[in-house]
Amino acid sequence: MTTATAPRLTAKGAATRARIVAAAADLVLARGVGGTSLDDVRAGTLTSKSQLFHYFPGGKTELVMAIAAYQFERVLQAQRPYLESLDTWAAWDGWRDALLAHYGSQPHWGCPVGTLVSELTGTDPVAAAQVAGHLDSWCGHLRDGLRRMRDSGLLRPDADPDRLALAVFASVQGGLLLTQATRSIEPLSAALDAALTALHAAAPVTTRS
Amino acid sequence: MTTATAPRLTAKGAATRARIVAAAADLVLARGVGGTSLDDVRAGTLTSKSQLFHYFPGGKTELVMAIAAYQFERVLQAQRPYLESLDTWAAWDGWRDALLAHYGSQPHWGCPVGTLVSELTGTDPVAAAQVAGHLDSWCGHLRDGLRRMRDSGLLRPDADPDRLALAVFASVQGGLLLTQATRSIEPLSAALDAALTALHAAAPVTTRS
Repeated sequence: MTTATAPRLTAKGAATRARIVAAAADLVLARGVGGTSLDDVRAGTLTSKSQLFHYFPGGKTELVMAIAAYQFERVLQAQRPYLESLDTWAAWDGWRDALLAHYGSQPHWGCPVGTLVSELTGTDPVAAAQVAGHLDSWCGHLRDGLRRMRDSGLLRPDADPDRLALAVFASVQGGLLLTQATRSIEPLSAALDAALTALHAAAPVTTRS
Repeated sequence: MTTATAPRLTAKGAATRARIVAAAADLVLARGVGGTSLDDVRAGTLTSKSQLFHYFPGGKTELVMAIAAYQFERVLQAQRPYLESLDTWAAWDGWRDALLAHYGSQPHWGCPVGTLVSELTGTDPVAAAQVAGHLDSWCGHLRDGLRRMRDSGLLRPDADPDRLALAVFASVQGGLLLTQATRSIEPLSAALDAALTALHAAAPVTTRS
């Protein structure tokens, strides 16, 4: 566990810290955690060694966790307002379109949260656990929506919302990984369409749309 | 581009090189490319600096590419004989079961090929392109099977085998990423089931099983 915690910051200090996190997030997105040293972060953010230690007394783990939280909030924001109300088929369609619009407008660097998992698992278990928690929260929104749809009869009583949510979320993560490999949004689009097809297959026959 | 190429090796030399690749592959799987230095590889494989240069004159890029090829062959092997004959629904079921059996018996470290994409994209474009090629070959087997199923009438004439293959492959990659985050095979299992549901939805109504 990291024992150091971020100091109380003035408004100006908080803004400086946020600026460092945002710039470091771009570096990590482009070069990976392993390919980004604290020296790279200092050079890329025009920050001194003592400044960096002041804002991140826990060192690289603390910085990486701040980056993960920052990226997680960004990807959630891109999925709003749909993400918190996936109770209708129209909301799922809106959510899919929002994801495609968001990632289609980014350089194709995959999911800025998901890509951290494989890098951190072996090298930084504390940060890896935090990232896994973000992914579970994200998937939890899908799960909650599907549970409500089952309760409201939009999914069959024998549908398994938790398992369906995992499957849809896997499609998002895998689709994003393949956007990175192919430099095209097409894999995410294909993956989301198939995932929604699988969801519709769990609807009662009479309400399928 | 790397200009150095591997030297012609004796049978004993080839065996030594293969031993280094296999051991280095385990290190990279556990710690990531960025977290594994050539010094780590030397220590982990009991190899001298000059030996490592002898077998991998192109340095880390060449070693990483050899690791990617080695892992790619392993994951293909785990999917045989189904992978090359995904022409029937039974073959798809067999393929799913083979994937689950293979990854269910591994420590949950995600896909040893897919995880390389995000790490290499920003730091080693040559190796990243090779990994993207492996992923495309893998997906190509799914694509070929689905094309034959459309031709034989097991999929509807208006089904899009290429897009469906991308979606199924995204489910595999995303499912594996989530096995790493959750330390459970469940996400891969859920993702594969939903992907097969989406495939079945592209079958003519009379032949759906």
